[in-house]
Amino acid sequence: MRREITGFSNPTVKYLRSLREKKHRKREGKFLAEGLRLLTDARESGRVPEILVMAQARDPHPLLRALEQAVEASGGEIVKTTPDILSKITGKDNPQGVVGVFAEFDTSLTALDRSAAPIWLVAQALRDPGNLGTMLRTGDAIGAGGLILVDDCADPFSVEAVRASMGAVFTQKLARAPWEEFIGWLRGGEGQLVAASLRDAVPHRGAPYTAPCFVLVGNESRGLPEDYEAACDLRVTMPMRGRADSLNAAVAAAVLGYEVLASLES
Amino acid sequence: MRREITGFSNPTVKYLRSLREKKHRKREGKFLAEGLRLLTDARESGRVPEILVMAQARDPHPLLRALEQAVEASGGEIVKTTPDILSKITGKDNPQGVVGVFAEFDTSLTALDRSAAPIWLVAQALRDPGNLGTMLRTGDAIGAGGLILVDDCADPFSVEAVRASMGAVFTQKLARAPWEEFIGWLRGGEGQLVAASLRDAVPHRGAPYTAPCFVLVGNESRGLPEDYEAACDLRVTMPMRGRADSLNAAVAAAVLGYEVLASLES
Repeated sequence: MRREITGFSNPTVKYLRSLREKKHRKREGKFLAEGLRLLTDARESGRVPEILVMAQARDPHPLLRALEQAVEASGGEIVKTTPDILSKITGKDNPQGVVGVFAEFDTSLTALDRSAAPIWLVAQALRDPGNLGTMLRTGDAIGAGGLILVDDCADPFSVEAVRASMGAVFTQKLARAPWEEFIGWLRGGEGQLVAASLRDAVPHRGAPYTAPCFVLVGNESRGLPEDYEAACDLRVTMPMRGRADSLNAAVAAAVLGYEVLASLES
Repeated sequence: MRREITGFSNPTVKYLRSLREKKHRKREGKFLAEGLRLLTDARESGRVPEILVMAQARDPHPLLRALEQAVEASGGEIVKTTPDILSKITGKDNPQGVVGVFAEFDTSLTALDRSAAPIWLVAQALRDPGNLGTMLRTGDAIGAGGLILVDDCADPFSVEAVRASMGAVFTQKLARAPWEEFIGWLRGGEGQLVAASLRDAVPHRGAPYTAPCFVLVGNESRGLPEDYEAACDLRVTMPMRGRADSLNAAVAAAVLGYEVLASLES
């Protein structure tokens, strides 16, 4: 289905704008992804938007045509509108010309197949959506299966997280669970839980990693609760040669994740 | 000197607010740092704010007393104000209770002593202040000497960069230079220039790093210009096991930086 929207007060504009807020995303079970590159990553990963919104003035582009065809083939809706209205939807002065509305994915632990990948990233109470998206992007790079969000984390379907993921939100599995549920699920099968930690830890380089390896990082300010660390199979620490005693959470996950990858492949 | 400000229209409030904008920071040569932890890091690194702004209602704290004493001892100014005015200055609903105004540092290359550290981070056209601050924080962790900003980068004295640095803006050296100036300076002494690259690159693990090693990452969207990469002594690449062909810039700097550290210390 195709239609045009030329009025700011159109209810679809209001609906699309509302998806920038968590409570509306949660109620609708939908989220936004912006930009031709991101939407092409989604399409190539088998995720097609339910609604594709584009500016009428937009130059034709082969990837945009491919996207339109995919949306039409899957029975989705294509909305053409003005650059001004697109700016209003995206909240940006120079919107990237195309926005997609996607259905949120299943994020239950039971949908994860832990044997599908040698590494999984786990974040506990991670509050920064940029860090969350960056962890998804890193997960893709190290061949992780996905990202498990433990306790109250930032929303992986926020515009910031989706953007920082650089498309990995469409390729990495996502799961969300409180700690008790996560640790119960983990102990119901194979899996080594490794914490980036300062307490009772061994050097991250040369530590005895085994697959499937679950790499756990904690909240940006507080780190991991002590009892969570105690429940891990391995606590590792990265060198700290300066004044600070911690790394950015997404950086810690990446440095440790690459070490696990090198260890498992050697 | 101590004084109180109770009016929103006080010129000092306007001045402090203006330092949130780059053009005003540049004109004044000053920048803001917020929060007791950050200001304590600064003090312990020998950097004392010229002006210390705090809420009158703020609970006494030994670290705050130490900060006040340091400001008084260095002839600085202490401004007490209301929580509302502090919110106006910081642009946050819940300001961290204390804000410092610092003089910007000398950021010329000639002020750098390359023999002072085995690793230096270099960013080219880095646009995200959060990435920039995260690189400073990582530099502190790996024992780097500082961060060199090549071409047109985000402002390291922006509130976002200062915050993401977690205090490392006060401990890492900072320099800014166009590429031609940087490469001329680099070749005027010892130093290996290593690019995180996809072209003509060797694996980052086990590459022949030598100190002082300058770790170069490029712009978030475009990466490094091809001729910049060609001018490097070594081009290394990190494993990419997924769909994406690049990492977040601050993540790439960290993964590579930790590898260089391990290599130089082994």
